[in-house]
Amino acid sequence: MANSDKIASPRRGSRLSRRLLLAGTAGAAAAVAFADRAGAQTGPSVPDDPTRVPGQPVAPVGMRSPFEHPVRLTPAPVPAFTPLEQLYGIITPSDLHYVIARGGIPAIDPTEYGLLIHGMVNQPTSFSLDDLKRFPSVTRTMFLECAGNTRTAWKGAPPESTVQELEGWTSTSEWTGVPVATLLKEVGIGAGASWALAEGSDAGALSRSIPVDKLLSDGLVAYGQNGEALRPEQGYPARLLLPGWIGNTNVKWLRRLKLGDQPFMTRYETALYTFPEADGSAVQFAFVLEAKSAITRPSGGMTIPEPGFWEVTGLAWSGRGRITRVEVSADGGQTWGEAALQEPVLSISHTRFRFPWTWDGGEAVLQSRATDETGYVQPTRSQLVAARGTDFGEMFNGIIGWHVATDGKVTYVES
Amino acid sequence: MANSDKIASPRRGSRLSRRLLLAGTAGAAAAVAFADRAGAQTGPSVPDDPTRVPGQPVAPVGMRSPFEHPVRLTPAPVPAFTPLEQLYGIITPSDLHYVIARGGIPAIDPTEYGLLIHGMVNQPTSFSLDDLKRFPSVTRTMFLECAGNTRTAWKGAPPESTVQELEGWTSTSEWTGVPVATLLKEVGIGAGASWALAEGSDAGALSRSIPVDKLLSDGLVAYGQNGEALRPEQGYPARLLLPGWIGNTNVKWLRRLKLGDQPFMTRYETALYTFPEADGSAVQFAFVLEAKSAITRPSGGMTIPEPGFWEVTGLAWSGRGRITRVEVSADGGQTWGEAALQEPVLSISHTRFRFPWTWDGGEAVLQSRATDETGYVQPTRSQLVAARGTDFGEMFNGIIGWHVATDGKVTYVES
Repeated sequence: MANSDKIASPRRGSRLSRRLLLAGTAGAAAAVAFADRAGAQTGPSVPDDPTRVPGQPVAPVGMRSPFEHPVRLTPAPVPAFTPLEQLYGIITPSDLHYVIARGGIPAIDPTEYGLLIHGMVNQPTSFSLDDLKRFPSVTRTMFLECAGNTRTAWKGAPPESTVQELEGWTSTSEWTGVPVATLLKEVGIGAGASWALAEGSDAGALSRSIPVDKLLSDGLVAYGQNGEALRPEQGYPARLLLPGWIGNTNVKWLRRLKLGDQPFMTRYETALYTFPEADGSAVQFAFVLEAKSAITRPSGGMTIPEPGFWEVTGLAWSGRGRITRVEVSADGGQTWGEAALQEPVLSISHTRFRFPWTWDGGEAVLQSRATDETGYVQPTRSQLVAARGTDFGEMFNGIIGWHVATDGKVTYVES
Repeated sequence: MANSDKIASPRRGSRLSRRLLLAGTAGAAAAVAFADRAGAQTGPSVPDDPTRVPGQPVAPVGMRSPFEHPVRLTPAPVPAFTPLEQLYGIITPSDLHYVIARGGIPAIDPTEYGLLIHGMVNQPTSFSLDDLKRFPSVTRTMFLECAGNTRTAWKGAPPESTVQELEGWTSTSEWTGVPVATLLKEVGIGAGASWALAEGSDAGALSRSIPVDKLLSDGLVAYGQNGEALRPEQGYPARLLLPGWIGNTNVKWLRRLKLGDQPFMTRYETALYTFPEADGSAVQFAFVLEAKSAITRPSGGMTIPEPGFWEVTGLAWSGRGRITRVEVSADGGQTWGEAALQEPVLSISHTRFRFPWTWDGGEAVLQSRATDETGYVQPTRSQLVAARGTDFGEMFNGIIGWHVATDGKVTYVES
């Protein structure tokens, strides 16, 4: 075109020309992605000018670009982390949702599926999947988080930790299902029933004791996730959802709710998920996830290529309701500025925050601090450790820090 | 278990025991899915009791259940319909988003991508994808809709039409990107510039003339969709989004914005997308999508297996803002009841509505009628035809009807 000689990169390349680089410390997945891009012989081939050749036809189900390789780290056979550092907005793509599945992912035929509600009920009832879908439905966007998320921070996470490794056992989806209250009304709650055993169909039949009050207040049996059927990793064909409660109470592949008048003392509330405190006592039936946040970009393993403007962004969430405030510090918590919260801010959902930051090229420590609608403020790690010691093991919701070196390298630092 | 002899299906099978059946009229895709399920030899194998065998390990990227086959109808090489009848909530899974791509889907290397902004600007600039990502970002959940959605209803759609075929050229995603206003501020809008040519990188380089005022008010250059990178079908690596405006103005694979002082009169606003009215005049530059709704379940091609309670659910949307009301009729529009709207109700987004309905087993005609925040009420087909004739061809937003026969079969009926 006529004036092509006048065309510039934005501000002559000085302010906006380069992107955060995700270095090899992000793990094998990122390394694979970069290898794909580096090698012209193995990379996807593209035409010099795509307007001059016919494009590909549309398939019944779409695919990702061959240049995109979002991948969850799966350090053991059963868990998978959501790659938070690669995501936008608040929705986690269903195939990138975090997974903890101690017995693996069971294969279930939806036409054979049944949810039995029995024990202290007036009419023990088995609901088929079609039964569940026939009741009035509700949809709710909410986060899930494993109680063990960020657990390495209790005792000093390695500096090379990425946000996926430190914070990636949390995800947000749009869930659809039937309120448990509707099902319990159908079967009739027996006099004195106060707890329910929720049991999954996975190997080992993960089971948890849940207060009936929680089931009645906002419990959901979900069969829809992000517009479609649940994914197998998320409990296909139906799972329990307990908004704001630790991940494993949200029993996947839910096959049974048995009502009783006391907790059932399953392995998951005696041998596991009972947390030792510093004074030698232990916390049992700790359910609610307190307010928390994490900066996802820039974050551990990335390199900031040059000083200048960089948007700081991340996620905040609380099991007790809406996030009302997120503050960001670039000097290790000495001074704080208010981040913008992306509307709509939903209750018990990831909330995207953004903060404009100009990096002067010097050392910096980036931190975020969330406040929820109860007024609870996300604590520092020191405050958490003072209250619970370092052996608590789970439910770490402290502020984490990202150290920026003068060469732009970002690493985890205790704060 | 002890009381298994007492276990019932809900209400002894009379009220909630069967699901809406999707009959073969939904097309080849559904037929394939049903064949998969019918044949024990070809269907996925599952253990009798999944709690007794180890489950599958977690993969870096998850998969759908082998029992789930959501599929878009792709009647020609280029378009694909969203299977609205199979979806929950408001988010359309990215791989099921509707597609219109007259030149097919171009293959684009993101590292080679550039968006040129030139013409009547102070500093012609080419932005790389990394440049776009470095600017302050915003996230917005919004619908897209092809101007041709529901076009067969102008002249009498066949009774066997499904909601996918009639209404499936609309989808909702959570989009992330940079406001066009930010980019235009960067380049500086030249004196007198009032229109922009937006041009894609697809074969044929689809281009539209867009008023600069619209770009400045809420135009977005998006690179994120439902948490991840845009899908190739949706304009990877970056596209234009013009909230509430007809689909093809939201130019995909956006490679150029050229500012000028008048429209550019491209083929897509002269030969195409100029609509004849009944009086012989034509409408050019019709941009805004008016309020509309559709019942997605029960809908064409399904069979209601028995009288009793059935939830009626669907989607409503408006290019002018929020949906404020959806009414549902089961008697062909003689009487209407108010549907519940799923919160949060977002501006220029699909809005899920639900209406409790008890089918008495007689003939019925189900309809939905949307009202938006401007007070605009979705018209009947008769009102539309009276205003525009039957040759208008595009932008049909009239009320559609689903006829329920006494055998439960659901078919399209003009309303």
